[in-house]
Amino acid sequence: MQYSQMTKSALEQELAELNEQYKSVVAKGLKLDMSRGKPGADQLCLSEGVLKTVTTNEDCLSENGTDCRNYGILDGLPEAKRLFAELLGVDAENVIVGGASSLNMMYDEISRAMLFGVHGGEKPWSAQGKIKFLCPVPGYDRHFAICQLMGIEMINIPMTESGPDMDLVEKYVSEDESVKGIWCVPKYSNPEGVVYSDETVRRFAALKPKAKDFRIFWDNAYAVHDLYGEIRLANILALAKEYGNEDMPLIFTSTSKISFSGAGVGCMAASVNNVTKSKKSMTIQTIGHDKINQLRHVKYFKNADGIKAQMRKHADILRPKFEAVLSAFEKELAPRGIAEWKTPRGGYFISLNVLPGCAKRVYELAKAAGVTLTPAGAPFPYGVDPEDKNLRIAPSYPPVSELAQAVEVLCLCCRIAACELLIK
Amino acid sequence: MQYSQMTKSALEQELAELNEQYKSVVAKGLKLDMSRGKPGADQLCLSEGVLKTVTTNEDCLSENGTDCRNYGILDGLPEAKRLFAELLGVDAENVIVGGASSLNMMYDEISRAMLFGVHGGEKPWSAQGKIKFLCPVPGYDRHFAICQLMGIEMINIPMTESGPDMDLVEKYVSEDESVKGIWCVPKYSNPEGVVYSDETVRRFAALKPKAKDFRIFWDNAYAVHDLYGEIRLANILALAKEYGNEDMPLIFTSTSKISFSGAGVGCMAASVNNVTKSKKSMTIQTIGHDKINQLRHVKYFKNADGIKAQMRKHADILRPKFEAVLSAFEKELAPRGIAEWKTPRGGYFISLNVLPGCAKRVYELAKAAGVTLTPAGAPFPYGVDPEDKNLRIAPSYPPVSELAQAVEVLCLCCRIAACELLIK
Repeated sequence: MQYSQMTKSALEQELAELNEQYKSVVAKGLKLDMSRGKPGADQLCLSEGVLKTVTTNEDCLSENGTDCRNYGILDGLPEAKRLFAELLGVDAENVIVGGASSLNMMYDEISRAMLFGVHGGEKPWSAQGKIKFLCPVPGYDRHFAICQLMGIEMINIPMTESGPDMDLVEKYVSEDESVKGIWCVPKYSNPEGVVYSDETVRRFAALKPKAKDFRIFWDNAYAVHDLYGEIRLANILALAKEYGNEDMPLIFTSTSKISFSGAGVGCMAASVNNVTKSKKSMTIQTIGHDKINQLRHVKYFKNADGIKAQMRKHADILRPKFEAVLSAFEKELAPRGIAEWKTPRGGYFISLNVLPGCAKRVYELAKAAGVTLTPAGAPFPYGVDPEDKNLRIAPSYPPVSELAQAVEVLCLCCRIAACELLIK
Repeated sequence: MQYSQMTKSALEQELAELNEQYKSVVAKGLKLDMSRGKPGADQLCLSEGVLKTVTTNEDCLSENGTDCRNYGILDGLPEAKRLFAELLGVDAENVIVGGASSLNMMYDEISRAMLFGVHGGEKPWSAQGKIKFLCPVPGYDRHFAICQLMGIEMINIPMTESGPDMDLVEKYVSEDESVKGIWCVPKYSNPEGVVYSDETVRRFAALKPKAKDFRIFWDNAYAVHDLYGEIRLANILALAKEYGNEDMPLIFTSTSKISFSGAGVGCMAASVNNVTKSKKSMTIQTIGHDKINQLRHVKYFKNADGIKAQMRKHADILRPKFEAVLSAFEKELAPRGIAEWKTPRGGYFISLNVLPGCAKRVYELAKAAGVTLTPAGAPFPYGVDPEDKNLRIAPSYPPVSELAQAVEVLCLCCRIAACELLIK
């Protein structure tokens, strides 16, 4: 029965029963974690072969004979560029291959923009007074943390089924010169799993920014992370070129959730103008990133098909985890009308909207019962969820059995918080 | 015979003969490179074992059971911190282990200082108008390039036999609040191979900076890179602590010239205050650096003794190369009194001072004869050698036979340039 249709006394009885259940759960002393989007150990085992591709001196030569053990090659081995180019549907000249972290490449791009400005910009961002970023919400906490560190003001943009609210994006971008960027996770958005529609991507590509130095930070972290077969994302760089906006998007991806999260390879793709500008300060920053690790990955995966085959194995491991969470939500939350969620077709998260005003309470209840969730509010700029309703669920790391236990506790906490709210 | 004692006509005759020799050298179409401090292939082969330490899933567990394949651990594996701590004579809590490039860690420290300020500083460096760095010369071009990119004014400080001219350093640092830093390569300085004396290190530790946010960038790139047995460098962090200056030095080192230049592990060591401050923005910048590569290195080298044993093998390969260059200088240049040089006991370079006004000419002559040197002026801020006399020789990369050929050409070019100058 929907909680909203229950009488106060019926809710009070329900709450009393739930509290009894909760007490016995607390007594179990569980220690379960659904807080971060980490691959499980079984997923990491899939890429053992990466470790075996370069084990001798001879293995260290790239296809053109470059000794990957030595200095040189600022922006990535040609074969590593080619691999990422194929994956992202861009040319190799658009690609910079980095170290283990694409987040670091995003940070570096913003840091450079702050200190030196971007291609076509007249001044560094830091010399332009207050500047702003648009932040589709809920979104990725680490994106927002970079803006907060840099003192960039963040503006919430609501997400829809097909991506950010583009009317609002277009309005801000075309009217406000202090708006310098927007954070996007265009495929299987973190945390809702939304895939931007072709229409949305085209509207991004066609933006007419008031600021000449506006950039789209296009974090394609889940480019090939499909759970139920391939879904195609429109090509932002190709579309932007059509509209004369080639310099607008900066695309990021990595193998963190393809091979190893702690030892993968990151990548940026952008117009030749942007690549040239970035390399100009990169060459001062470093002599080059780890080429042997780039070579390991190319030797193992070979091409985009090799990566996609690996991703089907990841999907086989992840699918039951997503389904365990979603089926519990269907069973425990749907009939009571106390939460909403989307059913992602890929990515690493499920976004759960409980009754407004309940998210922090659910987080605290779960924590006290030994189930760690991403802190309520984390998917919003400054950690503030204006409606206090969103919870990010990360089902990838725990084994299915633990996950089932954890989500059971979570549903119990959602019911308790909902009763408490409705009784008030 | 000393060229300075020769008559003009004798010099003209000498020059004519040298030009004949030069022509026949040019005709050979040589292609030799003494421009960058890269290890030779035989040196890189010494560390093949590093590649073999982590080749299975099970190998990826750190000593405390951390799965190095997954996310986590911002500042380095405990065992990697311990290894660098032992090497540098600091505590593990003073160490941040990074990615493949210590240059990148230096850049990041300066970039953060510009954007956010340093521990104990009141404002970001970029918000303090014109700021300055002291640059002992000749020095490392990549250090100076960072300052130039950031718009930090550079002041030349002459090097002596025992390190930078400390009277001058003390004067600038204690009197000028806009002096925010100094670049040091304290052991086997690049390019002269000077080891800072205990007295010099102590004077650094005892500096009384006018600027509260002054930092010593202590690039200990050649910490264990001895050619003729171990030479001990005084411990800047321990000494600075004695003087209440613990937050002043930032120490950097890496395995780039221990294992692989293109796939090593970088490290910073500093006071706990500095480490805490850096980690505060590092945690926004990245989830963590490549832990598997850290683990590879620890498993292979085990401890400082393991590294020192490896360095003795490097020395065996490098020593004949240094000696080939130095003995050619002794034979070709010394009797003619047209150049000066030091005899480094370690490191990667030999610094050659030709007659003032001749360095660019020698560089051009050598280049035209197929021998690439580091461009004249490179070891100076803004690429300007005020006396146009310094040339940095990098003997590590070419095989001894090629090196002998290259240095023969170099000596010929030095003689030509000297004759030309003295005839004028």
